[in-house]
Amino acid sequence: MSNDTSCENVHAIQFKHSTLILLDQRKLPLEETYLHFNDATSVAHAITDMVVRGAPAIGIAAAFGIALQARQQIKQPAFKLQEAFEVLAASRPTAVNLFWALDKMKSALEKCAHLNVPEQVDFLEKTAQKILQDDIAANHKMGELGASLIDSDSQVYTHCNAGALATGGYGTALGVIRSAHEQQKISMVFAGETRPWLQGARLTAWELMTDNIPVTLSSEGAAGQLLRQGKVKWIIVGADRISANGDVANKIGTYNLAVLAKHHHVKFMVVAPTSTFDMSLDNGTQIPIEERPMEEVTTIKDIKIAPNNCPAINPSFDITPHELIDAIVCEKGIIHRPNKENVARVVG
Amino acid sequence: MSNDTSCENVHAIQFKHSTLILLDQRKLPLEETYLHFNDATSVAHAITDMVVRGAPAIGIAAAFGIALQARQQIKQPAFKLQEAFEVLAASRPTAVNLFWALDKMKSALEKCAHLNVPEQVDFLEKTAQKILQDDIAANHKMGELGASLIDSDSQVYTHCNAGALATGGYGTALGVIRSAHEQQKISMVFAGETRPWLQGARLTAWELMTDNIPVTLSSEGAAGQLLRQGKVKWIIVGADRISANGDVANKIGTYNLAVLAKHHHVKFMVVAPTSTFDMSLDNGTQIPIEERPMEEVTTIKDIKIAPNNCPAINPSFDITPHELIDAIVCEKGIIHRPNKENVARVVG
Repeated sequence: MSNDTSCENVHAIQFKHSTLILLDQRKLPLEETYLHFNDATSVAHAITDMVVRGAPAIGIAAAFGIALQARQQIKQPAFKLQEAFEVLAASRPTAVNLFWALDKMKSALEKCAHLNVPEQVDFLEKTAQKILQDDIAANHKMGELGASLIDSDSQVYTHCNAGALATGGYGTALGVIRSAHEQQKISMVFAGETRPWLQGARLTAWELMTDNIPVTLSSEGAAGQLLRQGKVKWIIVGADRISANGDVANKIGTYNLAVLAKHHHVKFMVVAPTSTFDMSLDNGTQIPIEERPMEEVTTIKDIKIAPNNCPAINPSFDITPHELIDAIVCEKGIIHRPNKENVARVVG
Repeated sequence: MSNDTSCENVHAIQFKHSTLILLDQRKLPLEETYLHFNDATSVAHAITDMVVRGAPAIGIAAAFGIALQARQQIKQPAFKLQEAFEVLAASRPTAVNLFWALDKMKSALEKCAHLNVPEQVDFLEKTAQKILQDDIAANHKMGELGASLIDSDSQVYTHCNAGALATGGYGTALGVIRSAHEQQKISMVFAGETRPWLQGARLTAWELMTDNIPVTLSSEGAAGQLLRQGKVKWIIVGADRISANGDVANKIGTYNLAVLAKHHHVKFMVVAPTSTFDMSLDNGTQIPIEERPMEEVTTIKDIKIAPNNCPAINPSFDITPHELIDAIVCEKGIIHRPNKENVARVVG
C-alpha cells in the first residue's frame, strides 16, 4: 500500500493512481468497505457524513480533496478551486486540522503558480502526500514521547477513536498506546464505547484487536467505577482543537472523563499534533462546537431507540479546561501542566 | 385498570383475574406489548430477562409470583412454595426490594397457615396487592417530599428509569419530577440515555412524553458539559439498594453523575422507598453487583456494534458513596446529608 509507513494493519486513507481511497468508517466493524473519490465535493460529503473522521484524518482528506479537484481541471488553462476550498471548509466546524490543511494547500497553490497546470497538479498532490506522511511521522514521535510517561504494567482508558483510523496512520492517543504496548508497558486498554457514534466500540476495539493489543470495551457509565477501583493509571485521548491556553475540544464525553480522572487522581493525557492547536483562540469557550443531527442519538443503524419525535441534544464535542489535563503531547514535545505559557514554550 | 391509583398513563404491572400482566419493557418504545404470567418460574424469567425491571417493580412482581404459584396449587392439600421462593430470589442479585418482598410473602404464608388452602391463596394475593398499593402510596409521598426541595423554573437530569415503569406506579425519581411538574417547577427534564440497556432513551423518554412532561434525551457523555453550562439544578435518581450508611447502589453511570454533580455544585437526590434500604449492610462495598452478559454492550437489538469476540465489561450497577449525595428521599422523610446517623434517624 503506497502510503503505508506505519506498522499497523489499518489503512483509513490511501492515495493511489490519483484516487483517494477511504475506509468507510460508518460500516466498521461489520464491513471493511473502501470508497473511491476523485473530486472535492464528494470528499466534503465523506467528511460531513463521517466516512472519514478524526481531526488529523479530516485535514488529510481535505488536502487530497483539493488535489483531486485540481486534477479534474488539468486540461483547463487555470484552476478554479475557490469553490472546492469553500465546500471542504464547510464540511465540519470543530476540528481545526481541516482549516490548517486547507491553508497548507492554499500556500502550495500560490507557491506553484508559476508552473504549468499539469505541474501544478503534481505539486498539489505531492503537498497532500507530504501532509499525510508528516502526520504519520508526527504520530510516531508522539507515540514515543507519550509512552515515556507510562509506567510498566499499566491499564489505560481511551475514549472515541484517536487511532490509525483518525489519522494518516499509527494514531495519536492510540499511537502512544501502540508505542507503550511495544515497550510491554500496557496490560489492558479500556475502550469507552463513545455514544452516540460508538467510535470506541466500532473503531477503537476493532483497531486494537486488529493489532493484537488487549482491549476491553466499556460503556461510558462504567468509567467512574473503573477509576474508583484503582485499575486505570492514565486516561489518554486525542483532540479536535486546542486553544492557546491548553483547553481541549474533543469528542463529547471527554470532559466527563477529565473530571472523573481529577476526582480519582488518575492522570489525563491529550495527544495531538501541532496542526490541532489554534493559537488564535485564547481559550476553549471560543471553539465552535458542532451540533449533529439528533437522529444519531435517537436511532442506531436504522433502529429507533427512543420514542418518535423525542427531542435530543447531540453536541459532537465538549471542552476540557486545561486545569484538568496533566500533559498534552505533540510532536514538538510534552506540555506538562498545560497553560498559556507552557503551551507557547513547546508549540511556539 | 384495577390497580391504577396513580395519575399517569403508564401501567407496567397489573393483576387481573388472578393473572399478572407485565408491560414488556424490552420492546418499548417501539411496541407496547403486555405479557401474562401464572406461575413463579415464568415471573422469575421475566425478572432476569428484564421484561420487568426497576427495584420496586421487581419486588412487586416477585410477590405476585409467589401468589400465582400458590394458586397453581389450590387443589392440593398444602403448598410447596420453597422452590418458588428460591427461583425468584435467584432472578437478580442487586435490588434488595426483591428479597424484602419475598420476606413479606414468607411472613404472610406463616400468618395464614391456619386457613384452608383457597383462603391462603386469597390471603397471599391480597398481600401482593397490598405491596403494590403501598408502593404507589409511598411514591406519591416521596414525590411530595422530594418536590419540596426543588425551586421553581428548574431543569433537572435523571438517569435510567425510576418511574412508573420501575415501580407500582408514579415512580420514585420520576415521582418527584411528576410532583414538581404538577407544581409547575420543572422547565425541562434531561434524560440520560443509560447504556447499555437504554432505559433513559427507551423508557424514561417514553414515560415522560406519555405524561406530557418536557424531556430532552442526552447521551451520558454530554452530561458534564450540560452541568458546566449551569442549566441543571438537581440530578435525581432511584436506587436498587442503600446500605445503612447511605451508600447507594444504582444503575451503572450513577456514580459518574454524582462525581460530576459534586464538581459543578449541582445537587444530587436519591429517591427510594424504605424497602430499598438494607440496614444489615454497613456500607456500599458489601452490596453484590450484578455482572450482566457482555452481549448487552456489544449488540443493540440484533445488530453487532463491536467486533466479533470483543471482550466487554457489563456491571449493571455502581455504588455512589453517601458523601456525594445531598438528600435521600424515602416515604418516611428526607435524609439530608446521608450518613449512618441520619439514615437511622429517618429509616429507623
